[in-house]
Amino acid sequence: MERIDETMATYLSQVVVAELQQHHEGSMPAFQEGVGDTDRESVGISMLGAEGQSAQAGSAEQPFPLESASKVLSLALALEDRGPEALFRCVGREPSGDPYHSIATLEEGEMGIPSNPMINAGAIVATSMIEARDGEQRFQRLLDFIRRLAANPAIDYNREMYEAEDKDLNRALFYYMRNHDVVEGSEEDLLVPYLKQTSIEMNCIELSRVAAVLANRGRDPVSGETLISEATVRTVLTLMFTTGMYDESGKFAVDVGIPAKSGISGCIMAVVPGRLGFGLIGPALDDSGNSVAGVRILERLSQRWRLGVFA
Amino acid sequence: MERIDETMATYLSQVVVAELQQHHEGSMPAFQEGVGDTDRESVGISMLGAEGQSAQAGSAEQPFPLESASKVLSLALALEDRGPEALFRCVGREPSGDPYHSIATLEEGEMGIPSNPMINAGAIVATSMIEARDGEQRFQRLLDFIRRLAANPAIDYNREMYEAEDKDLNRALFYYMRNHDVVEGSEEDLLVPYLKQTSIEMNCIELSRVAAVLANRGRDPVSGETLISEATVRTVLTLMFTTGMYDESGKFAVDVGIPAKSGISGCIMAVVPGRLGFGLIGPALDDSGNSVAGVRILERLSQRWRLGVFA
Amino acid sequence: MERIDETMATYLSQVVVAELQQHHEGSMPAFQEGVGDTDRESVGISMLGAEGQSAQAGSAEQPFPLESASKVLSLALALEDRGPEALFRCVGREPSGDPYHSIATLEEGEMGIPSNPMINAGAIVATSMIEARDGEQRFQRLLDFIRRLAANPAIDYNREMYEAEDKDLNRALFYYMRNHDVVEGSEEDLLVPYLKQTSIEMNCIELSRVAAVLANRGRDPVSGETLISEATVRTVLTLMFTTGMYDESGKFAVDVGIPAKSGISGCIMAVVPGRLGFGLIGPALDDSGNSVAGVRILERLSQRWRLGVFA
Amino acid sequence: MERIDETMATYLSQVVVAELQQHHEGSMPAFQEGVGDTDRESVGISMLGAEGQSAQAGSAEQPFPLESASKVLSLALALEDRGPEALFRCVGREPSGDPYHSIATLEEGEMGIPSNPMINAGAIVATSMIEARDGEQRFQRLLDFIRRLAANPAIDYNREMYEAEDKDLNRALFYYMRNHDVVEGSEEDLLVPYLKQTSIEMNCIELSRVAAVLANRGRDPVSGETLISEATVRTVLTLMFTTGMYDESGKFAVDVGIPAKSGISGCIMAVVPGRLGFGLIGPALDDSGNSVAGVRILERLSQRWRLGVFA
Repeated sequence: MERIDETMATYLSQVVVAELQQHHEGSMPAFQEGVGDTDRESVGISMLGAEGQSAQAGSAEQPFPLESASKVLSLALALEDRGPEALFRCVGREPSGDPYHSIATLEEGEMGIPSNPMINAGAIVATSMIEARDGEQRFQRLLDFIRRLAANPAIDYNREMYEAEDKDLNRALFYYMRNHDVVEGSEEDLLVPYLKQTSIEMNCIELSRVAAVLANRGRDPVSGETLISEATVRTVLTLMFTTGMYDESGKFAVDVGIPAKSGISGCIMAVVPGRLGFGLIGPALDDSGNSVAGVRILERLSQRWRLGVFA
Repeated sequence: MERIDETMATYLSQVVVAELQQHHEGSMPAFQEGVGDTDRESVGISMLGAEGQSAQAGSAEQPFPLESASKVLSLALALEDRGPEALFRCVGREPSGDPYHSIATLEEGEMGIPSNPMINAGAIVATSMIEARDGEQRFQRLLDFIRRLAANPAIDYNREMYEAEDKDLNRALFYYMRNHDVVEGSEEDLLVPYLKQTSIEMNCIELSRVAAVLANRGRDPVSGETLISEATVRTVLTLMFTTGMYDESGKFAVDVGIPAKSGISGCIMAVVPGRLGFGLIGPALDDSGNSVAGVRILERLSQRWRLGVFA
Repeated sequence: MERIDETMATYLSQVVVAELQQHHEGSMPAFQEGVGDTDRESVGISMLGAEGQSAQAGSAEQPFPLESASKVLSLALALEDRGPEALFRCVGREPSGDPYHSIATLEEGEMGIPSNPMINAGAIVATSMIEARDGEQRFQRLLDFIRRLAANPAIDYNREMYEAEDKDLNRALFYYMRNHDVVEGSEEDLLVPYLKQTSIEMNCIELSRVAAVLANRGRDPVSGETLISEATVRTVLTLMFTTGMYDESGKFAVDVGIPAKSGISGCIMAVVPGRLGFGLIGPALDDSGNSVAGVRILERLSQRWRLGVFA
Repeated sequence: MERIDETMATYLSQVVVAELQQHHEGSMPAFQEGVGDTDRESVGISMLGAEGQSAQAGSAEQPFPLESASKVLSLALALEDRGPEALFRCVGREPSGDPYHSIATLEEGEMGIPSNPMINAGAIVATSMIEARDGEQRFQRLLDFIRRLAANPAIDYNREMYEAEDKDLNRALFYYMRNHDVVEGSEEDLLVPYLKQTSIEMNCIELSRVAAVLANRGRDPVSGETLISEATVRTVLTLMFTTGMYDESGKFAVDVGIPAKSGISGCIMAVVPGRLGFGLIGPALDDSGNSVAGVRILERLSQRWRLGVFA
């Protein structure tokens, strides 16, 4: 297990400061005006060791919506509920080579089966497979799961953001898949929980706690409690590694080599198996939708501390 | 204007009889059980001259739902209401090379703009542009228009069929386009009229009357009343010629050479400009979704009477 | 048969003059420097009646390479040689919805079978089916055929242009199709004749003579000699109408309504069946690769004289 | 470093025997008749520890052509020659979601840039970047590199197989990329070396030696000599993990979790970083082109010995 010694904590501050002194190029997340407002300068990071040691720098306490980063957690719960065989009958495990929002990809190969659970269509399928009698319970179970992982029972979704969001693309994906019997049920029961989960808010410290659970084979690094099975952790980390960073997943795997999942709020959850969990925020996004600052910081840390899977 | 003399009427009967003696290969329309039930043997044709002369053979009086054949008529009304410039800002005029139900095609070229009004997505756009304050009025105006064209105020849509139909694919297309601001409004106001129009029922005699209006530059061949403008007729006939027969439009244009539009109920509306209108039914469908009997009959008539546009 | 009276000839001059006074927007053909050099102002037109009457305006005597306009003529000869059944087993008749140079389209549907003979891959197939013992004879037969159609035995291909052209894309198409057994033979025998045919040069007067043969059901409008069979003319005109103007074929069919084929040298051959043949040049190209001036002139003439197929 | 003790060696024999007793479903490699003939029953495996310990079972000494497995080695040499920056300007690092032979994929995104070096187009680019004055030297340098990695100077390519192979698809890819200036040079200099490398033959023992070099951070596990730089090894292993097993790369990463590369001869090279190198052969192929026996054996070994990257 990784020691987070003084050198590491100091270096963390240095890279965040270095980021803040850079020109913050990149587009900003397209939230509705007044909702989820964020600041180009709000760069933050939290690091949690698999044994519970922690360090923070920058805007580590400022909350943000998980957006696509939530896909990892709904996938984990669906895998716990249904097991990989049932789940992977309805969603693939292959990188798609298509944008996360693509609907065209559903018309290739097995009609209506999304390529993987990290693109929107696949994430909708995964969430729809969380066991529940209706949409409300489905979302509640996921929220409770995330609260346990982040060790904060106050975590909730941003209702205003949920209301304001344009839902039409995800509706299109949902009805296309329902047309092909990949999902069966109502928009209310199956799609709404997914739409809500993307608005769940936490900060870097909490996100690093979730990441540390994954780094620690599913056990909470503080309480020692097992929150996710080892098999599910393995599957989730593999999919983060191969498909977690949108259309730059392959580049990130080569350059950084750490299983990670980004969201268009500019957050990244990154996991160094057996060693560290990271939560990052940096709202300016590159062309692929990943945090410019987040990717750069992780690349520097990976090179400095040899964090890559194949390092 | 074409005389429909005794020879023509007799020949019509002969080709229908010849069809009925053939093996009726081809798949049958996938209606819900008990709804829109049809008979592989129900082959019928009606022919109406641009001056009003008429002839029928086979099951010419048996009603069927228009299905995709209705796309021609909603396009005509939308063109009359909005004019070509406004309409063709929201839907293209190019053959797509993709299946009529394809959603992938919406992700190419101009995002969300369907290739043409004969594929489902494009037909949804066209219908949504019929002027009306809400969905009910929109559909009513289209139904009234069709009743006038077919000269039968009793024509209506099949409610049972409308209810039973799987609407999810068209919902997916609708929400995908709404996401790209190609359509703006509710499912109720914009999509429902399209879903209903495909269930509008008529028989071959009525369909040939509609076709004869198009053959007669928009004037009713019996009453002489102008029902559609010449400019709209020209546009509609061009699109029928280039895109009216699903993925076999090009083959049909070469082999038969008549502007036509088919529906998956097995119907075909065919127009010989200046001369004849045809309504055909023959439920067994080829791989492209066109009536096996209908295509074969039109090919024989076209060769015998030189009906092709470039003949 | 169409009279070309004084009014028509005068109007022709007017539209060309009007074009020349316009700003000549549009990109210029990408010929190699010093080869096929052309002038943005070189707008010309020639018109030939199906009975032999003629009129010209602008740069009607300036030669240009046929480029894609040659595809119509190699298709005609291949159809005469092999008949439609044999030909259309190796190349489709459907508009592709893809760019003319696309190779991706060959991976869809029937592997390696091009959608139609107006895209490069399909034109390579058509030329390869011209009967000959080798590539030299194949090209010579096509050149002789074109010389007869244009009534000028001096017509030839531009060797300098042929040598200078980048052949790699067409090589890629050729080898991809050979991999799928759509063509069988050497680059020398099958591909070279196609590469040469695109460099065949003529002027508007000659091109309008070729067009007039097609307008006149295959008979030379001056000598009365039959040069192409009626069946082949019908097929060729249909494909020009549905696929002749690159990705704007559908728009052109609606707006102009005349079977036509353009080439990236800025030429257009247009045929009003039973009435007129046109040859046009206007080097500035729109985004689809069609002559800006040529399209605009044809649209004006079509509206003024009601030349459209469905007018 | 991994001990290969008696238990491991014994278990290896057991799984191979188990495979041999199974029904050998799956298609056989499509070699030309008489060339590269192989036997459905020829299942073999060799394992080499990062410290040099070794074990074999089954047909471990029977040679086979590397086919796509060679792509890993040409990539490694190109990376050593040019460095990642230069190389990844001409070929991507992203999983493509398309078949390895796809040409359509070259028309997406950056025109002509292949998605990654494990699909044919990308491997052609990588080989073309091996430094050499001509094709002969280029191939010779690669062959020498492979001889050193496999510690056998007698390794060579199968001339008969090279001659017999259908080269048209790879020619199509080559000319398409040359059209887009992704490769610059002749078929002889750039494509022929790639075509030859796929016919290089070795057996499981030699392949496991190559794999063990990669497992041992680029150092030969027996001689201790550094044959590949650590940075190159890291990149190569990452790409094997994300894209090495054709269209089942994602599934294999989840189920087995070992960086591996397969070839359509039925071979697989698999690397457990820091621990073990594997060479496998099993000619019967699944739908994706991977060895049925090879995949199954690796899955069993991975589960038994926890070999997965995230295990």
